[in-house]
Amino acid sequence: MKKVVGMGEIMIQMNPTEKGPMRYQHLFEQHVAGSEGNVIIQMQRLGIQTSFITAVGLDPFGEMIISTLKSEGVDTSFVKVDPKHPTGIYFVQRSYPIPGKTKVFYYRKNSAASFISEKDIDAKIFDDVDLFFLSGITPALSKRCRKAALKAIEICVKKKIKVVFDTNIRVNLLKTKNKAFEILKPFIESAEVLFTGVGDLTFLFGKNLRNSISELRKIAKNAELIIVKKGKEGSICFDVNSNTYIEYSSFPVEVEDELGAGDSFDGTFLSAMLRGYSFEKCLRYANASGAMAVSLKGDIEPLPTWKDLDLFLEVYEKSEEKLLR
Amino acid sequence: MKKVVGMGEIMIQMNPTEKGPMRYQHLFEQHVAGSEGNVIIQMQRLGIQTSFITAVGLDPFGEMIISTLKSEGVDTSFVKVDPKHPTGIYFVQRSYPIPGKTKVFYYRKNSAASFISEKDIDAKIFDDVDLFFLSGITPALSKRCRKAALKAIEICVKKKIKVVFDTNIRVNLLKTKNKAFEILKPFIESAEVLFTGVGDLTFLFGKNLRNSISELRKIAKNAELIIVKKGKEGSICFDVNSNTYIEYSSFPVEVEDELGAGDSFDGTFLSAMLRGYSFEKCLRYANASGAMAVSLKGDIEPLPTWKDLDLFLEVYEKSEEKLLR
Amino acid sequence: MKKVVGMGEIMIQMNPTEKGPMRYQHLFEQHVAGSEGNVIIQMQRLGIQTSFITAVGLDPFGEMIISTLKSEGVDTSFVKVDPKHPTGIYFVQRSYPIPGKTKVFYYRKNSAASFISEKDIDAKIFDDVDLFFLSGITPALSKRCRKAALKAIEICVKKKIKVVFDTNIRVNLLKTKNKAFEILKPFIESAEVLFTGVGDLTFLFGKNLRNSISELRKIAKNAELIIVKKGKEGSICFDVNSNTYIEYSSFPVEVEDELGAGDSFDGTFLSAMLRGYSFEKCLRYANASGAMAVSLKGDIEPLPTWKDLDLFLEVYEKSEEKLLR
Amino acid sequence: MKKVVGMGEIMIQMNPTEKGPMRYQHLFEQHVAGSEGNVIIQMQRLGIQTSFITAVGLDPFGEMIISTLKSEGVDTSFVKVDPKHPTGIYFVQRSYPIPGKTKVFYYRKNSAASFISEKDIDAKIFDDVDLFFLSGITPALSKRCRKAALKAIEICVKKKIKVVFDTNIRVNLLKTKNKAFEILKPFIESAEVLFTGVGDLTFLFGKNLRNSISELRKIAKNAELIIVKKGKEGSICFDVNSNTYIEYSSFPVEVEDELGAGDSFDGTFLSAMLRGYSFEKCLRYANASGAMAVSLKGDIEPLPTWKDLDLFLEVYEKSEEKLLR
Amino acid sequence: MKKVVGMGEIMIQMNPTEKGPMRYQHLFEQHVAGSEGNVIIQMQRLGIQTSFITAVGLDPFGEMIISTLKSEGVDTSFVKVDPKHPTGIYFVQRSYPIPGKTKVFYYRKNSAASFISEKDIDAKIFDDVDLFFLSGITPALSKRCRKAALKAIEICVKKKIKVVFDTNIRVNLLKTKNKAFEILKPFIESAEVLFTGVGDLTFLFGKNLRNSISELRKIAKNAELIIVKKGKEGSICFDVNSNTYIEYSSFPVEVEDELGAGDSFDGTFLSAMLRGYSFEKCLRYANASGAMAVSLKGDIEPLPTWKDLDLFLEVYEKSEEKLLR
Amino acid sequence: MKKVVGMGEIMIQMNPTEKGPMRYQHLFEQHVAGSEGNVIIQMQRLGIQTSFITAVGLDPFGEMIISTLKSEGVDTSFVKVDPKHPTGIYFVQRSYPIPGKTKVFYYRKNSAASFISEKDIDAKIFDDVDLFFLSGITPALSKRCRKAALKAIEICVKKKIKVVFDTNIRVNLLKTKNKAFEILKPFIESAEVLFTGVGDLTFLFGKNLRNSISELRKIAKNAELIIVKKGKEGSICFDVNSNTYIEYSSFPVEVEDELGAGDSFDGTFLSAMLRGYSFEKCLRYANASGAMAVSLKGDIEPLPTWKDLDLFLEVYEKSEEKLLR
Repeated sequence: MKKVVGMGEIMIQMNPTEKGPMRYQHLFEQHVAGSEGNVIIQMQRLGIQTSFITAVGLDPFGEMIISTLKSEGVDTSFVKVDPKHPTGIYFVQRSYPIPGKTKVFYYRKNSAASFISEKDIDAKIFDDVDLFFLSGITPALSKRCRKAALKAIEICVKKKIKVVFDTNIRVNLLKTKNKAFEILKPFIESAEVLFTGVGDLTFLFGKNLRNSISELRKIAKNAELIIVKKGKEGSICFDVNSNTYIEYSSFPVEVEDELGAGDSFDGTFLSAMLRGYSFEKCLRYANASGAMAVSLKGDIEPLPTWKDLDLFLEVYEKSEEKLLR
Repeated sequence: MKKVVGMGEIMIQMNPTEKGPMRYQHLFEQHVAGSEGNVIIQMQRLGIQTSFITAVGLDPFGEMIISTLKSEGVDTSFVKVDPKHPTGIYFVQRSYPIPGKTKVFYYRKNSAASFISEKDIDAKIFDDVDLFFLSGITPALSKRCRKAALKAIEICVKKKIKVVFDTNIRVNLLKTKNKAFEILKPFIESAEVLFTGVGDLTFLFGKNLRNSISELRKIAKNAELIIVKKGKEGSICFDVNSNTYIEYSSFPVEVEDELGAGDSFDGTFLSAMLRGYSFEKCLRYANASGAMAVSLKGDIEPLPTWKDLDLFLEVYEKSEEKLLR
Repeated sequence: MKKVVGMGEIMIQMNPTEKGPMRYQHLFEQHVAGSEGNVIIQMQRLGIQTSFITAVGLDPFGEMIISTLKSEGVDTSFVKVDPKHPTGIYFVQRSYPIPGKTKVFYYRKNSAASFISEKDIDAKIFDDVDLFFLSGITPALSKRCRKAALKAIEICVKKKIKVVFDTNIRVNLLKTKNKAFEILKPFIESAEVLFTGVGDLTFLFGKNLRNSISELRKIAKNAELIIVKKGKEGSICFDVNSNTYIEYSSFPVEVEDELGAGDSFDGTFLSAMLRGYSFEKCLRYANASGAMAVSLKGDIEPLPTWKDLDLFLEVYEKSEEKLLR
Repeated sequence: MKKVVGMGEIMIQMNPTEKGPMRYQHLFEQHVAGSEGNVIIQMQRLGIQTSFITAVGLDPFGEMIISTLKSEGVDTSFVKVDPKHPTGIYFVQRSYPIPGKTKVFYYRKNSAASFISEKDIDAKIFDDVDLFFLSGITPALSKRCRKAALKAIEICVKKKIKVVFDTNIRVNLLKTKNKAFEILKPFIESAEVLFTGVGDLTFLFGKNLRNSISELRKIAKNAELIIVKKGKEGSICFDVNSNTYIEYSSFPVEVEDELGAGDSFDGTFLSAMLRGYSFEKCLRYANASGAMAVSLKGDIEPLPTWKDLDLFLEVYEKSEEKLLR
Repeated sequence: MKKVVGMGEIMIQMNPTEKGPMRYQHLFEQHVAGSEGNVIIQMQRLGIQTSFITAVGLDPFGEMIISTLKSEGVDTSFVKVDPKHPTGIYFVQRSYPIPGKTKVFYYRKNSAASFISEKDIDAKIFDDVDLFFLSGITPALSKRCRKAALKAIEICVKKKIKVVFDTNIRVNLLKTKNKAFEILKPFIESAEVLFTGVGDLTFLFGKNLRNSISELRKIAKNAELIIVKKGKEGSICFDVNSNTYIEYSSFPVEVEDELGAGDSFDGTFLSAMLRGYSFEKCLRYANASGAMAVSLKGDIEPLPTWKDLDLFLEVYEKSEEKLLR
Repeated sequence: MKKVVGMGEIMIQMNPTEKGPMRYQHLFEQHVAGSEGNVIIQMQRLGIQTSFITAVGLDPFGEMIISTLKSEGVDTSFVKVDPKHPTGIYFVQRSYPIPGKTKVFYYRKNSAASFISEKDIDAKIFDDVDLFFLSGITPALSKRCRKAALKAIEICVKKKIKVVFDTNIRVNLLKTKNKAFEILKPFIESAEVLFTGVGDLTFLFGKNLRNSISELRKIAKNAELIIVKKGKEGSICFDVNSNTYIEYSSFPVEVEDELGAGDSFDGTFLSAMLRGYSFEKCLRYANASGAMAVSLKGDIEPLPTWKDLDLFLEVYEKSEEKLLR
């Protein structure tokens, strides 16, 4: 079985039961959420053996994050419990002031995860590992986190572990285009597989997609594969070796909640890739996974199994009415 | 007043408050649901005098089913309370893995209703009855149920009571096309009015609709009327005597929950027919009723009265803005 | 800072948590709602100094209405607490029998607000006031209310306060076209700014919009501005002085709840007008505000600030993908 | 089977999900409640054949009341649906300002039930009836109701139907002791079985219980039985014929909600009496029923069957630990 | 009308709907809470004119705190909105691991309120003020807060405004007895009216209550009145001038939630004192208020009016049964 | 670290949000529950390494049970997923008809767990295991289960693994005293540590406790320790070797939900025993754990850690007021 390690912050999300301004909300649901964690849980659900590097506070939120990872089967041996800093949390305001879009209020400054440092990155974490996944959020959390992430990549390079990076830009943390460039560059340079999205490319290189990708390619010296997520427009995979573009259109579902769709896409693409599927097949599964994710609330809940994916594809790719009961 | 008898299993439905995989659900709503029961309640609400043959366990679920029928005015004199077998229940998983579709997990094996047998079918149930309604679910529940259903039909034939049958195929119970044929055939043969749907026809006869109907006609020797429900495509009524097809298009509403729409269609069509309305008018009311059913959650809750139907039609058939407050 | 006074009934709205027939509802949310109050709160949120004339019962519902107005910053010095009559309440039935439309059941007869009378209209309420807002609901509540409203307008005329009137027809209260004419006429005649909607115009003058507006103009002798709300078709502003029509199309959002959209439109238009914005800009902001209102449940909750409006317009008027987190 | 008729107002109760001042409540549950209706439903549940005289509005609340009565098996042939007056409703404030006590806010003035009049009391309602139940609330609703109630009693006297009256004083409706006397006197005089409570006796005759009962006896010329409910102190039954007092102590349960306990007491006592049980046994069952009622929220929900009562008594009258699972 | 100013942090409280470990909670209610704010709102509700000094973030939580103060009528002119620091929030774990006790998890470090500094204390805040209320929480928040609080007291001394201090020890913030002494001493020394509780006294001076009070008296050089809250044991007021102790026992209510009871006690005592009531009467009202507070969840919701207090006392001080409906 | 294996059925519990008859419930919470599983999770939480033998269906309920065990850290390698039989479920009716007691409605007949058989008991499950825990429920499920349980015990005897048995009688499954004896006898005979309760002893041997224990001793030939749980009366431990009784009284907490208290008692006693604590200390911790369990709803949620237990004991064994915030 393939073995994958991920790294990043997992937080508690407080999500109001109703859409609209947070000031008028009465009830909030407690969820566990975090981009890189979502990717890893998606891969675990698709049969990969996974482990996750993070830190949580010595508090009930930390307990909840660890027990959630465990419940999904992710190895938590390398989760640090930090008695001095609290688990990061955030509040979500849905559909206000932009209908269908989410606004976020963080209490993550000085969180336990922002205190992950180089000394938390033990080389033995990477024993027998095939692939390491990281996103642009982690180096943006703090200088300490950035150094820790760089150390992790250094180890991977030494051990010939495939490095996968998703640019995953958080304007809240990176503030400006220049800051974003400065912080993300070393990671883009190191990645063998690189995920990004249309929003990220526009932020970094402007609106012309074709031009953006070629700019990105110049930086991504190690990349063998660049995958661009385009939301309703589907996704593209650029195979550097063969210099070919593969496109796959998206599946038409009603959007309930966009959060987490990119993560389930990444996790599914990588799991398919580790199974040796063709890039087209990888995109097809990843698009299906993303469609299932946007059709439901929650980040972790909609992550599909292979069986779910195959049933989804059967129904969406054949037009005939099917009796399901 | 016209008098109608129905027969079938009514169960308790546990319906999670949120869409998505059942494994992550916290809260479930308790509903009463059952295809033939829905049809009968729809007819009662439209002014028909109804009675229902079923069996429930000696448990709170059974009490709830009986009190629900009573609250709607359905005569429950022929509901058996079985002290040895529990009331059937089922759990519903909405929008996963197929967005907008429902997956169902049954605890109905050996339920009280599956133990309905010939001796529960007393001829006096059918005194002064004008119409008997049955669907393909009941004979699929158990051999006992099948025999009981056949006995009921035999009595109806003797008493010249109009037999109405809806194919209503449950793949979970009937498994294969051959099994379905074997079990449903005697009922299709006996029915004077026959309801079916595009999904059922595809399952039995393949994708060509025109061909399917003519295959069905060959079996349905007694049928005077064959009605095919086509969902968003509206519905067709084939009048055997005059050898004519009447079509009616559907009303454009947003679909919230498909379950129960066919039942409210059947009940409304039959009530309109018993009032002596033209088949076109029957389809028009039935399509309106189906549209109202899919626009709301729940099986029983959206079933309309004549007044509701007329208001719905007034608004949907005239385009002008209307002040409703 | 500009100062505005409004007048009308504010009620407690009991809104079921689920759509569908009220008979099957289990849980109701308590809201504060009232058309003219919504307009005034919208204006307060947009930086206008506001005050409101109303009456509530000596009961917890009255307390809740007053504390809600206070929480939004509206001056409540002229809210009468009537120990003899209760606060008006109403129940809402959503999406039944017409999907997407709301049916209302009132307990407002003999409410505290229906007992507002001339002697409650003290001239000092209008000291230093720039604008007085009233809608067609208030004179329809009772004869007493009608006289009180007329007295308020008389005072405004004397004090050269701009009178704004929204026809806001409630068929429940006004019953017939003739009754509506009789009751609304003096208010339409007095208004300098007149709001109306396509439904109201159809009810009063028939389906031809162009004709309706010119009929309305004939009555509205004092009007300098007539604004017609057309829902998804956007809005028109007729500038009497320059004899010009300005149109502005609506913003494409998914409709969650139509109630209150017209009120947020009025309040935003008037606030923009008081800032001296061009009529086109007033319509643009008012359409945005209406779009935000229909995209969320609740009357007061979605009312935007200038900052909210500007962010909404930025996203809706530029097509590019934006990183919001 | 014995046949009983009851008469009174049934209303919709809006009950907040949380205790405390109503001004801060967000969610309300919809319940059906009404003192005399509770008594009748209790009797129906204990095997008596019952019918109920009331009136509801032509609105969803009225529908809900009728369907609730039907679901319990009560005959609703004599429920009037009044198209001109709404169904009465009330709001409940629990545990504030007095912990454990309930404050009530009514919207019942001019309700459909307050418009019940003599002409609604058809003699044929009382065909084959054994017992007629009424409480002090009904004559307090309106003059019309009082006359209707007197007419009903007149018919009962003629038909030799046993008249049962519970004083059930509502200070909200009766205001003063003198008003209460005036209104209740003819009913107290006519009753063969008379229920009352310590609070009612204190209100009418002062704090001395012994004295109160003998005062009451003087008025209650027809009474064969006077039953006094004393809450935690149990209950007393005074057998006029034998001039003996029977006391029975209450069962020690934790009080969740006092409302409805007196009604379930009455219904159970009368059902036991109609079975010919000794007065002591009647009190024992009635006390058990009252204890079950106070231990749960809701008026109708906790009403027990004979089987429930017997299990309750078995556990409470024997001290040993019992395995229930 | 008397005028009172308070100062302190108000936070958003996330309170789970169920008791038990926070790790298993699904839903949280959003509340506004803060000890000194509760005292001020209690006084406002009892007819005092109040104003509050605090700081909130430029976020929806800050908006909610301000609108809550406004809804209660508290003047918010001196509430600072800090764009750089967030509003403090905390999570509550009820009844675990100690049944009936509450554990708290704070996100208040570097909150907006902890950045209140001397320059936020403008002398004009105190114009025409009769009384200034402060508790031991505020100086414990940060050095800045401590200095700001001292400056406020300095101004009060100059302006001869009565200083009231409640020791209100938060072990989470003050850590040790010595730290507590050091930080609280200057405030205890300045107070003319001093509130404390048995827990605070035990923490500072050990278990002997009599001894503790005399130790406290030595420090509290300016105190004219020392009030000790003893929970179920009632409360004591020591009148320094007359050297007399007044005791008042507590009212026996079922405890639902202890939080906020001390605050409603303080606010009620002070309001009664400002009305010139005897100290015994002040204690009687304050004990009643505390009893009402513990009998309900929430800090602000149960705060009574004079009318509520009088009804509570009437029922609790007279034993007879009362008809309340 | 000590290693423990448990065996039994874990089910999905549907628990209504309100107390009272199930027929009137609207919402149910989904919980994972099962007596032996609770014991094992308690031990895992107290630092023991645990594994569990059970079977679940190939359905979302089975997934939920497995992910819950995993989330708590229990090894699930020996959980069978049975594609032919569903996961057992049950519904709970709280406080009706006996206040404070729970009635249960099972759908566990032919459940996956009832199909556990000898061939599922692989000897390697027991490698390096110190203790095996089983209760009287498992052999009562089916003949297959009984044989499987006997095989497990046989292996334990061979491997010199300590066998612990809790009589845990379910009258629903065992029906009669004789049946209970027949089924439980071999397990009582084999156990080295034997847990039982007053209810079980009364059912098996009658009401005299002293006599019951000595009867039980005669059968329990291998027992070194017999522990009797007496609810509010505390618990007794009989040390066979030293022929001594140790008693420990219970802690006075308010009872919210009795279910699961015995399980947390067992798990805590055994964990303390495996740490080598004195039997008195074992009882003290076990009583504390039981008290914490009854004070909260849910089986798994209240299970304490050592830290929780120590804090509980500190507060309950010292009388002084403690500042917890």
